[in-house]
Amino acid sequence: MPLRTLIDGEEADHLSVLDRGLHYGDGLFETILLRDGRPCQWQRHLERLLLGAERLAIPTPDVRLLREEAWRAAHALSSGVLKLILSRGAGGRGYRPPRAPNPIRIFLAYPLPAAGAQDWRQGIAVRYCQTPASINPALAGIKHLNRLDSVLARLEWGDAAVAEGLMLDPLGSIVGGTMSNLFLWDGARLLSPLLDRCGIAGTVRGLVLHLAATMGIESLLTRLEPDDLSAASGLFLTNSILGVRPVQTLGGARFDLERLPWRLMEAVHEAAQEFE
Amino acid sequence: MPLRTLIDGEEADHLSVLDRGLHYGDGLFETILLRDGRPCQWQRHLERLLLGAERLAIPTPDVRLLREEAWRAAHALSSGVLKLILSRGAGGRGYRPPRAPNPIRIFLAYPLPAAGAQDWRQGIAVRYCQTPASINPALAGIKHLNRLDSVLARLEWGDAAVAEGLMLDPLGSIVGGTMSNLFLWDGARLLSPLLDRCGIAGTVRGLVLHLAATMGIESLLTRLEPDDLSAASGLFLTNSILGVRPVQTLGGARFDLERLPWRLMEAVHEAAQEFE
Repeated sequence: MPLRTLIDGEEADHLSVLDRGLHYGDGLFETILLRDGRPCQWQRHLERLLLGAERLAIPTPDVRLLREEAWRAAHALSSGVLKLILSRGAGGRGYRPPRAPNPIRIFLAYPLPAAGAQDWRQGIAVRYCQTPASINPALAGIKHLNRLDSVLARLEWGDAAVAEGLMLDPLGSIVGGTMSNLFLWDGARLLSPLLDRCGIAGTVRGLVLHLAATMGIESLLTRLEPDDLSAASGLFLTNSILGVRPVQTLGGARFDLERLPWRLMEAVHEAAQEFE
Repeated sequence: MPLRTLIDGEEADHLSVLDRGLHYGDGLFETILLRDGRPCQWQRHLERLLLGAERLAIPTPDVRLLREEAWRAAHALSSGVLKLILSRGAGGRGYRPPRAPNPIRIFLAYPLPAAGAQDWRQGIAVRYCQTPASINPALAGIKHLNRLDSVLARLEWGDAAVAEGLMLDPLGSIVGGTMSNLFLWDGARLLSPLLDRCGIAGTVRGLVLHLAATMGIESLLTRLEPDDLSAASGLFLTNSILGVRPVQTLGGARFDLERLPWRLMEAVHEAAQEFE
């Protein structure tokens, strides 16, 4: 259960049954790390949300209001997760959005999950999922509310020792984890799946690409298949709550964590916890 | 606005902000024609809903309860549309569903849209949409709540003279209309898009295939591309509220409605308004 919920700035726990977020997944979300009563990487989350609103033709939310409500929802929480949902709001019957939609802002503050407190340097166990990621170039990259592919993939395993599952698209290319982005280290370069037809462009993924460039590390966004992963020097996953997570095992394969680009990973994990 | 709303059997207009239908589109829906205070084609809608629940691993709803609530929501409405949403219900944070989900049943009764009162034999104007339909074999065919592709496609036109838009998948095959299934008549056979990777298998589509077989008309589910449509003797669309709608124009092309298989179309349009 959330520790605090704001709907359009008011403490509330119910919303209209006519909301298009419910009817069609017609909206966007962000999952933000909280530390010392403040959201981390606010600017990156906000930018992705605004890009998503533009792509879905949802009226641009008031940025100062979002910020004020995010800080209010985070207030006095030493650590946690802030989920922000921006739905297109209530609508009539049918796919066509109202001419003048009234988008709804929802903030939910949750406790930090147990995995958030583990030593991030420890390698995690990862598996492959059978459920494919949905292909749609019009929806790729943004964090919209149509997430049944990840839900079905996450249903595939219950073993708590497995931290994440990798998803492929229906054409056989790797997209990433159910809730994370994937990076492959080939000993000299960083490779990561192109997100032009599937997947979410994560905020920590953005930090990896930015910091790699700063450090003079070449990174390549490309199609990757399972064979590429087996042949890698190492793999790591990123998400906004867990930061960086090196992959110890993937199905049958075991990786030597020593070979990973730790200097970059340390810098990214640190940056993911910064405020701006 | 709906004329009547039931949530888990109670008159209500708000639901929990923790509902997974909102967070992930984690649920299913049906759009059912109402006539003389009763739902039409209840059995076909129910079967698709149960198939969807099985595919999404949502606990099977109580069929007698659904029926009782559907009839209650429809009561005394001489005509209208009944929307049924089955969401996986409230959940914690994260894609993984609760071990024992508590699915929510929502019934919304709406007035019949204006197009429902028009003479169905008149041809309609149809256009092509740019927004692709999402490809995912794990989600194809069922009527789940991840419908952003149709929402974005429906945003592409405002001209009320255009009744429907056709969507292609990202690989270039026709999927159907934003809210309807497509049939092509080649003069001897019925062809319709294979829905193995995209789209919704409509209840009236099921009636077409069933009645065509009864009448000895061959029908073929296959990949169709825009060139196939231009070369057709005729096209028609189906959906549960509008029944059958012959296509008069598609983009630049104009069709001679006389060449369509009217005996089949009449039988389907009639059957779509029957109760079982």
